[in-house]
Amino acid sequence: MPVNIQIYDTTLRDGAQAQGISFSPEDKKDILIKLDEFGADFVEGGWPGSNPKDDEFFQKAGELRLENARLVAFGSTRKHGSKASEDSNLLAISRSSAGWACIFGKSWDFHVTDALRIPLEDNLEMIRDSVSFLRSTGMHVMFDAEHFFDGYRANREYALSALAAAAGGGAEWLVLCDTNGGSMPEQVAEAVRDVVPRFGVPVGIHCHNDSGLATACSLAAVDAGATMVQGTVNGIGERCGNADLCSVIPNLMIKKGRSCPKIDLKGLTRLSRFVGETANITDLDSLPYVGEKAFAHKGGVHVSAIQKDPRTYEHITPESVGNRRRILVSDMSGRASIVEKLKEFGMAVESEESNRILTTVKYMESKGYQFEGADASFELLVKRAKGEVDTPFEVVGFRLFMDEVGRKGFTSEASVKVVDRYGNVEHTASDGNGPVNALDNALRKAIGRFFPVLNDIRLTDYKVRVLDEKSATASSVRVLIRSTDGKHSWTTVGVSDNVIEASMTALVDSMEYAILRSEGRC
Amino acid sequence: MPVNIQIYDTTLRDGAQAQGISFSPEDKKDILIKLDEFGADFVEGGWPGSNPKDDEFFQKAGELRLENARLVAFGSTRKHGSKASEDSNLLAISRSSAGWACIFGKSWDFHVTDALRIPLEDNLEMIRDSVSFLRSTGMHVMFDAEHFFDGYRANREYALSALAAAAGGGAEWLVLCDTNGGSMPEQVAEAVRDVVPRFGVPVGIHCHNDSGLATACSLAAVDAGATMVQGTVNGIGERCGNADLCSVIPNLMIKKGRSCPKIDLKGLTRLSRFVGETANITDLDSLPYVGEKAFAHKGGVHVSAIQKDPRTYEHITPESVGNRRRILVSDMSGRASIVEKLKEFGMAVESEESNRILTTVKYMESKGYQFEGADASFELLVKRAKGEVDTPFEVVGFRLFMDEVGRKGFTSEASVKVVDRYGNVEHTASDGNGPVNALDNALRKAIGRFFPVLNDIRLTDYKVRVLDEKSATASSVRVLIRSTDGKHSWTTVGVSDNVIEASMTALVDSMEYAILRSEGRC
Repeated sequence: MPVNIQIYDTTLRDGAQAQGISFSPEDKKDILIKLDEFGADFVEGGWPGSNPKDDEFFQKAGELRLENARLVAFGSTRKHGSKASEDSNLLAISRSSAGWACIFGKSWDFHVTDALRIPLEDNLEMIRDSVSFLRSTGMHVMFDAEHFFDGYRANREYALSALAAAAGGGAEWLVLCDTNGGSMPEQVAEAVRDVVPRFGVPVGIHCHNDSGLATACSLAAVDAGATMVQGTVNGIGERCGNADLCSVIPNLMIKKGRSCPKIDLKGLTRLSRFVGETANITDLDSLPYVGEKAFAHKGGVHVSAIQKDPRTYEHITPESVGNRRRILVSDMSGRASIVEKLKEFGMAVESEESNRILTTVKYMESKGYQFEGADASFELLVKRAKGEVDTPFEVVGFRLFMDEVGRKGFTSEASVKVVDRYGNVEHTASDGNGPVNALDNALRKAIGRFFPVLNDIRLTDYKVRVLDEKSATASSVRVLIRSTDGKHSWTTVGVSDNVIEASMTALVDSMEYAILRSEGRC
Repeated sequence: MPVNIQIYDTTLRDGAQAQGISFSPEDKKDILIKLDEFGADFVEGGWPGSNPKDDEFFQKAGELRLENARLVAFGSTRKHGSKASEDSNLLAISRSSAGWACIFGKSWDFHVTDALRIPLEDNLEMIRDSVSFLRSTGMHVMFDAEHFFDGYRANREYALSALAAAAGGGAEWLVLCDTNGGSMPEQVAEAVRDVVPRFGVPVGIHCHNDSGLATACSLAAVDAGATMVQGTVNGIGERCGNADLCSVIPNLMIKKGRSCPKIDLKGLTRLSRFVGETANITDLDSLPYVGEKAFAHKGGVHVSAIQKDPRTYEHITPESVGNRRRILVSDMSGRASIVEKLKEFGMAVESEESNRILTTVKYMESKGYQFEGADASFELLVKRAKGEVDTPFEVVGFRLFMDEVGRKGFTSEASVKVVDRYGNVEHTASDGNGPVNALDNALRKAIGRFFPVLNDIRLTDYKVRVLDEKSATASSVRVLIRSTDGKHSWTTVGVSDNVIEASMTALVDSMEYAILRSEGRC
């Protein structure tokens, strides 16, 4: 009877080290919540004590009630020539809100002698001391053996002695890392088979994708007895990325019949899209299982075979991972997921209203809208289609003026004219820190005259995503704006080939949502 | 003594079926030439008789003198209820300029009964007849067994009988296809081991990446006795793509010690970039072995270890696949990585100049600049600090005007005044698709008057990233612009709390770099 496999997510730490990715503490908290809902067993949140953003995140995370995920703080073994109990990073870990620590240390002799340049035995003592200190503070501890497979091939005895030091210090998991991503699956399998029976401590696997084999190596490790897989959502990470949990998990559960009892497999695609949107990554379309193209079929033979029986050209049912089939000739865009959402608004599935909304959503998606991360805009769209909202205001026109002449600096000014639902007109202007801010200020000033509730609303996030990158500066952009009234927050979206117009759409939706919410209508 | 592995490229056929990729006959000819130079053993060019573009390609290809590659024409077994010798597609293949044909046919009983809806024996006869007809015309023939692994699991006897029919017809290769991409490496290995000794015909492997395992399955097949790998450059292909030859080949040659005698491994990265450019694919940066990020290092600890010995954080030497190490100049990098980068410009490490540049970079990073993805802006910064550039032009001022009044739609207009290095002034204006595009158009028009080289430059990518997300619409943004002259491409960066100003900085740097490059100064 095979044991369950634990899923350990390091999107917030190893994923965040990817070139070009930068999560705010708020982003990290949102991702943690989604990972918890998805059923990840462990979520590695970052390095306490290494930067203020991670400290802020651990503070926020400590206030959450997690259902499934155990929060993990990451860090290194103590510095050479000091005590673990005096190491500022280890102390920060022990004081963080995390119940688990994951400490990495060297297991490749070459790294100890040539990178750290310290005696081999000292490194073992650093491992033992660091693990045992953290255990003594009451934390659970796992050990990440950096470069384990390179070390195992170079000096098997030393690599195993690093694990022995961690186990001796009280480590509750030994995680074997293919840090440089150069190992072949059969090499991983051989080493894991050797380690698993040796220490009476369960073994995890942590792979990088430098040889294009991170998924294969993770599966090979599980076949050889590892019972935890570390990876990231969408495989984001340094260089060529980490093992992609969005491939590893369905391969384990669907293809290999392994059990990950808490995992909500049908939530996999939603999780992938959410993290992609938050990380501002655009190239997820071809990802196995969760990509937009993963179950996309072009016309002709494939489509007709698919209509006879989907198993002809699909290796799994897309719904099992929350994805959907797309027929590229006549795109049945997202009907299931939209219908699913409409149910939340109490709408009958086959009603005329539902069909009208589906048509609208399909049209807007074809223009680049995505409602995955913009619930408030979606709710407004539904309410408008149902005729349930009495639009509180309308922007009759706006003008933007920017210049920079000589060395006098950049100026931005916006003027707007709005009319409320009773026909009252307000025409005003504002400057700002750039054109979007000037527009935001002018709109807030004008609409706030009619609806003082806007004084309590602030914007907390503003994201711009370029859609069709081939058209460069003439490309479509999608703008996401997050707003809050202090208790509740919501996100709106705008799309245009003009960043100002897209921002305007998202700003107006955000303010309209705030007003309708204050009136109890959203 | 292991036999050599043959490399079979299907970028021009299976790769071209990827969503969003469209090769002209001229593109295909260029790629064929590069694949031949690279040393591919077989290049599958397309489907003769199926569309005019492929017919034109085969005509052009027939005029080439190929050194290494054998050109292959692709097609299906004949239609049910007809003769191979009267099948228009098979006739087109036989009349094409290709010396080899690759014919695909069904090997999964379910597909024969449920998709083709014909008797099982008829399908075997279609395979035998089609192969033997093409052989009779003097062509070499290989057989692609579609859905072989699904078929093998469902009805092993029938799957093997499809191969027997092809071998009986005279097929010189039997290629086992994991058409739906759902097989695990151990399943592929088991089936290949069963097939290889059976027919006295060499065996190839053709994998898709729907489970994220196309590379692993290809390697597993070779380990089990397959001696040809089919795949595409950069793994392009339908859905999640095909096996990526840019991963498979170095894994075979470097990691597994297999021999591909004609392959110019050092040309691999060049090939990847060429195909990426021709296919207009922008998301190759994270690809194993050949991606821009594959050997990119950021963060002080990694960089300082790399300086001691590159093996600490690199699984192979980047030069062995024609790639290069990149030290990312980023906020995590500290002094070591900037100094390493300055060495590329021939600067002494402790010089006053270096220190001045370090100070400038630190200051700009604190404002939100990141040079890790903006080599051209970094080079300009260094050249400016060294007093090596004679600034070709200066933007004296610009104005932007946007409005949307009533329902008349959004207008954007930019005016700019520039002066060249001889004091000539150009003052002009342009409208555009949004403000940044208007500015780009106006700048190009004004500066292009002095420097016609700008006419050959185009922007290929435009990215906007919001930095300090708490300030929402007043946040700093970082704009990255990638430009190309068709052969070489470069990236520039601009940061401001104003998306227009940030875009302006990146645009001006891009144009300045293009001009200095054309003058041999960058």
